[in-house]
Amino acid sequence: MPNVNRQVLLKSRPAAIPQAGNFEIVERDVPVPGDRQFLVRNEFLSVEPAMRGWVSAAANYSQPVGIGEVMRSFAAGTVVESRHPGYAVGDKVMGMLGWQDYAVSDGANITRKVRETDLPLSLSLGVLGLNGITAYFGLLDLGAPKPGDTVVVSTAAGAVGSAVGQIARLMGCRTVGITGGPVKAKLCTGEFGYDAVIDYKAGDVAAALKAACPDGVDVYFDNTSGAISDAVIAQIAVGARIVICGTASVSSWDPWPAGPRVERHILVKRARMSGLLIFDYAHRYDEAVTRLAAWVRDGKLKYREDIADGIEHAPGAIAELYRGENLGKKLIRLR
Amino acid sequence: MPNVNRQVLLKSRPAAIPQAGNFEIVERDVPVPGDRQFLVRNEFLSVEPAMRGWVSAAANYSQPVGIGEVMRSFAAGTVVESRHPGYAVGDKVMGMLGWQDYAVSDGANITRKVRETDLPLSLSLGVLGLNGITAYFGLLDLGAPKPGDTVVVSTAAGAVGSAVGQIARLMGCRTVGITGGPVKAKLCTGEFGYDAVIDYKAGDVAAALKAACPDGVDVYFDNTSGAISDAVIAQIAVGARIVICGTASVSSWDPWPAGPRVERHILVKRARMSGLLIFDYAHRYDEAVTRLAAWVRDGKLKYREDIADGIEHAPGAIAELYRGENLGKKLIRLR
Repeated sequence: MPNVNRQVLLKSRPAAIPQAGNFEIVERDVPVPGDRQFLVRNEFLSVEPAMRGWVSAAANYSQPVGIGEVMRSFAAGTVVESRHPGYAVGDKVMGMLGWQDYAVSDGANITRKVRETDLPLSLSLGVLGLNGITAYFGLLDLGAPKPGDTVVVSTAAGAVGSAVGQIARLMGCRTVGITGGPVKAKLCTGEFGYDAVIDYKAGDVAAALKAACPDGVDVYFDNTSGAISDAVIAQIAVGARIVICGTASVSSWDPWPAGPRVERHILVKRARMSGLLIFDYAHRYDEAVTRLAAWVRDGKLKYREDIADGIEHAPGAIAELYRGENLGKKLIRLR
Repeated sequence: MPNVNRQVLLKSRPAAIPQAGNFEIVERDVPVPGDRQFLVRNEFLSVEPAMRGWVSAAANYSQPVGIGEVMRSFAAGTVVESRHPGYAVGDKVMGMLGWQDYAVSDGANITRKVRETDLPLSLSLGVLGLNGITAYFGLLDLGAPKPGDTVVVSTAAGAVGSAVGQIARLMGCRTVGITGGPVKAKLCTGEFGYDAVIDYKAGDVAAALKAACPDGVDVYFDNTSGAISDAVIAQIAVGARIVICGTASVSSWDPWPAGPRVERHILVKRARMSGLLIFDYAHRYDEAVTRLAAWVRDGKLKYREDIADGIEHAPGAIAELYRGENLGKKLIRLR
């Protein structure tokens, strides 16, 4: 274990996608837990699209990370010192522990104890973490899929999307994935079992959708917004459910960009568009993880990880994510 | 009773709002009901915003009215001749009977028998008809109002909007109406009991909304789309429900006009936008009318009617509606 605490601080506020230069790495003393606190040695740091929102000054669902503060992040690690009755040395935890080697916690920023110790700890940040949980509740609660429905997923090979597609298939749906490039397209039909895949970089998305969804789209799990969503929403079926989970294809929302007005279409199709923020489901995380873990053990829910070794990879990682360079859940492993 | 059947036919397809010149009035023989049919003498014809969609060639939720066909319309009248076991002479009915003096029916186009015979028959086309039923299910089912919620209604003095505002108030909500001009604004706070009213013709809607809804908008019942909706949606609260009932302020949806993209906002606010087509609730109409009629009898649900005498007023009536000239439910009374 390192004898200093390396931390990634927010140095400047990005105009759009956070770049490596917006962060700096500093070395600090390893913190000492006080009464009713414990020390976590982080083993994996998470990198996710939502981080763009967390560092944005524009109104969002959480206070922005302050300049000079440790970058907000989920991380998973092991309790290495404890003065808290609820946490013992050796416990595995996942929570908002930040981009750093060590974090002191009083438990308030712990998302959950990781009890699936037969599975790799890194999964608690991916398919058994907020990504899988987001897929689970977004699809099942807001998307309300019925057997035989056609479910379309954008960023279909991503950490959330790949789980959505597989869960939809487990629910008896036909699944159509939208992704970029032949490598990810092959992952979709090969590893993640999509019935059809559309490579948005390869041609006309609207025409490909028409061919793949002859009866229209019953559920659209949207991680992108933008032109891809416009094409999908234009082809929804009566009673469709649109789940807004992410807006990765739009680089700035300040001011709101223009797009085709959806109101008339939502009305005529009696559709429903719902926004998902997974933190609203915190009281039900364990329900989701129990079911997701069972599917993982049975080989019914596959996942990919894209792990970079060393905290020095963290500052540039959000920008890499938005360039779509990763295959699978993007993580930083700490040495 | 007239001894001819005057009918309003669709003569040409309008590009946007149907005008008087798109229709012609012809005289035909009074039809004779066959076996298991009955003859209705129409007493009131309905005029409503949805008619624009019914004559539009663009894809919609129903087949467009054909050129040379009787204009599709709700109407209310009395059975004057019957060879149908389910309908007796003297029965009051409301249904898709068309803009004409007489209609033969086999029952399939009857929306409901009017059993509230202690109340005026015209109400079956307004506050106890599809307008009231739309307000009832749109607000209660899709809007899901809770006591203390702030409910904003566009076209607040209209046939649907005025009922929405009053039902929301009966549910314990704070109600804010948006309407055009001082006469309608006065109706809103006076007759329909809105807690606040915004005259969109008088000034800055966004600023007025901010003053009227300091904690944001929990439910937005949208009859307009366009700039008014943009201002309201920008001020929704976390967990808001947006009910898309009509799009009266947008004159053409072919192609879809551009507007601010709502996806990010829907996500951040964990909001829900739902489209309402009241025909989906046909199996529950009687439930709504029973409750609405009780409120009308108790003086808790007020309504206005704007009745023109004579079928010759029908052709221009849709355009008048879109110019916002009517105060209350627009009807044509047949002599």
